[in-house]
Amino acid sequence: MSDKAFQTEIISVGTELLLGHVTNTDARDVSEQLSKIGINVRYHTVVGDNPQRLRDCVEIARRRADVIITTGGLGPTCDDLTKQILAEAFSLKLVEVKAEREGLYDYIKYSRDFTPNNYAQAMLPEGCTVFHNNCGTAPGCAFEKDGVTVVMLPGPPKECRAMLLESAIPYLKKLSGGQIVSHSLRIFGIGESAVDQMFRDEMDRMSNPSMAPYAKECDCLLQVTAKAPSEAEAEAMIRPVMERAAARLGEYVYGTDVECIEEAVFALMEQNSLRFAAAESCTGGEVAKRFTDIPGASAHFVGGVVTYTDDMKARLLGIDPALIAQHGAVSREIAREMALRVREISGADIGVGVTGLAGPDGDGVHEVGTVFVSMAVSDGVFVRELHLGAQRTRSFIRRMAGNHVYDMMRRYMTGLEII
Amino acid sequence: MSDKAFQTEIISVGTELLLGHVTNTDARDVSEQLSKIGINVRYHTVVGDNPQRLRDCVEIARRRADVIITTGGLGPTCDDLTKQILAEAFSLKLVEVKAEREGLYDYIKYSRDFTPNNYAQAMLPEGCTVFHNNCGTAPGCAFEKDGVTVVMLPGPPKECRAMLLESAIPYLKKLSGGQIVSHSLRIFGIGESAVDQMFRDEMDRMSNPSMAPYAKECDCLLQVTAKAPSEAEAEAMIRPVMERAAARLGEYVYGTDVECIEEAVFALMEQNSLRFAAAESCTGGEVAKRFTDIPGASAHFVGGVVTYTDDMKARLLGIDPALIAQHGAVSREIAREMALRVREISGADIGVGVTGLAGPDGDGVHEVGTVFVSMAVSDGVFVRELHLGAQRTRSFIRRMAGNHVYDMMRRYMTGLEII
Repeated sequence: MSDKAFQTEIISVGTELLLGHVTNTDARDVSEQLSKIGINVRYHTVVGDNPQRLRDCVEIARRRADVIITTGGLGPTCDDLTKQILAEAFSLKLVEVKAEREGLYDYIKYSRDFTPNNYAQAMLPEGCTVFHNNCGTAPGCAFEKDGVTVVMLPGPPKECRAMLLESAIPYLKKLSGGQIVSHSLRIFGIGESAVDQMFRDEMDRMSNPSMAPYAKECDCLLQVTAKAPSEAEAEAMIRPVMERAAARLGEYVYGTDVECIEEAVFALMEQNSLRFAAAESCTGGEVAKRFTDIPGASAHFVGGVVTYTDDMKARLLGIDPALIAQHGAVSREIAREMALRVREISGADIGVGVTGLAGPDGDGVHEVGTVFVSMAVSDGVFVRELHLGAQRTRSFIRRMAGNHVYDMMRRYMTGLEII
Repeated sequence: MSDKAFQTEIISVGTELLLGHVTNTDARDVSEQLSKIGINVRYHTVVGDNPQRLRDCVEIARRRADVIITTGGLGPTCDDLTKQILAEAFSLKLVEVKAEREGLYDYIKYSRDFTPNNYAQAMLPEGCTVFHNNCGTAPGCAFEKDGVTVVMLPGPPKECRAMLLESAIPYLKKLSGGQIVSHSLRIFGIGESAVDQMFRDEMDRMSNPSMAPYAKECDCLLQVTAKAPSEAEAEAMIRPVMERAAARLGEYVYGTDVECIEEAVFALMEQNSLRFAAAESCTGGEVAKRFTDIPGASAHFVGGVVTYTDDMKARLLGIDPALIAQHGAVSREIAREMALRVREISGADIGVGVTGLAGPDGDGVHEVGTVFVSMAVSDGVFVRELHLGAQRTRSFIRRMAGNHVYDMMRRYMTGLEII
């Protein structure tokens, strides 16, 4: 097996995947867990509930992989054909596993829709390792034959995930030669292509650890991955690379192994025991919503206002209508007032404001994508003027404006230049 | 091409998919849209940013499919290799498309990190149909060669989806034999399995048009699909089925062919020239954010407050702290006050309120998932008490609470019973 370098293919079986009714989260879950134990996934394949096409996919997989993991097609209905096809492909008979038949009886005796075809689930390839299903009825299994390791997991995501963690990963761990560890630097303020250019030479020279930039919707990340016999060794290989990269990217790095900039801001507010309030116009609750997606947000976010009209800016924030008439709602001055007022009204340490044009319609004065984001703190008010691009979507402009709000807060809390 | 019966394979390119860092939503989106226009998807394949393996996948795909759709690998970095490999596989040169190069310049000229490698994105297979990217920089394209149709779409899900709908589907529609038309009834208040049971007999008897229920995150839908030589014929087949189903589902149907309940509420507010304001606690801006995702929201949403602490309920809404002390912030009384006060302060026709426990932490009094949603209108205040389930995620509870707010507004505007 070692000569094929332990390559894995995941075959997901189910017509519902090809119709786009469901997303293939099983392949993602299996991939994620396999990379953690150092097994390389080379391909995902999705095929429908069709015997001949599944047979063909298995033939392709056994030529290019030495571990085949299937998800789906283990249930009791007649389109569940994974076990039959895989057993046939590796010249194995299906035999009834008594413990599973009895387990099935226990599981479904209370069910309204108990039918004899349920027992087909207890038929498994001869000599296989049986994986009992603790979240459903269909058992999974694993076997090795002709230099290939085959693992079969159920399709429903919860069942697949549970059996993966409880049975398949321990089974595969014995076979794996090493641990893969990945860490990533999250970056805001420069794009994926600039990051790529910055590290291109280094990336071309590296193979283990390796380094690669990825674009996210409104920011990007640089990922460093290493493979080593143990997790500790992989970590030790990654550390200096991460440190060098972080130093080179400097103030653009907002966090390590975080999911989004608001998560980094949350952590900084924890460290500094700070609370903020938000006054939003064009983002319409985006800033508040994203922060309150984080469990425990109430310790650092007191609330705020969504002032979607000029009138509401007066009513809720007490901004003088004459000031709005003079400068327009989309202006540096009004952004400034919004941050100041919401800070004052709420009593929070930091007040932030956003006013701008998310589109698709303009206001006849500014280009769509013009946004002013502001932050009021004890020692002053800061306003950042953004031109996010008239051709951008409403959702991009709103999300990016939110990122700039969080970026100002992050810079304030870490002592960086704010604008 | 007709002898191969128009079989499609989707090849998604990206190592991040094989590492399990992201889910392959592109393949789901493409599959979903293709089935709507009657194109059969036979396989999904995922392969990493590796030239030889991608080459091999393209060879397999061209033997078993006559439409190949790729997603990903069109960006400016050197692991973006889809265009090169596909052009090479079909013996086409890459040539610079002038309009795309100029478009790129317009797009990135404001960017701090403009780099020459961005221009690689304007290199496309000679003679292809160029798909301009309205949500990002990398253009897609399509060509036909050697009996195979190739379509290339960008990887970031928003860009992929937009280009799919704007360019790829119209391009492929011309090739498809027959028209598939689908319409769906969006349903809130009863679940997918109840809908399935209601229509099971009818569904079993039908094949064209066909009918199927689908679960969404916090509601469900019933989809009716017909295939006919023309769109008009397919429409005529669907109409009576939709009418019967809508009559049977009655007040649970909130819209036809809409994406979400707030879209249905937006349409009703248009018809009735109404405006609303929101006072949110546990949803933290979710209600405001979702409504303002809709372009033109400002005509019907004036704004609101996010009062994430008791103190903010007093400061922004003027709710008596003694009342909060008496009933607790998570109570029918406070929900009532929130709706009344935000309506009064804003001058809007409708005021809505939400207070509850989104979890994961409880308050020692209520179970997580306890939420009170309220609506104040000229003729009264209505409060709905929800128990959304302590085992549910924070994001589910917040989203579901938002749906209930919108459901109350919808029922009010259509003259249905509100609670």
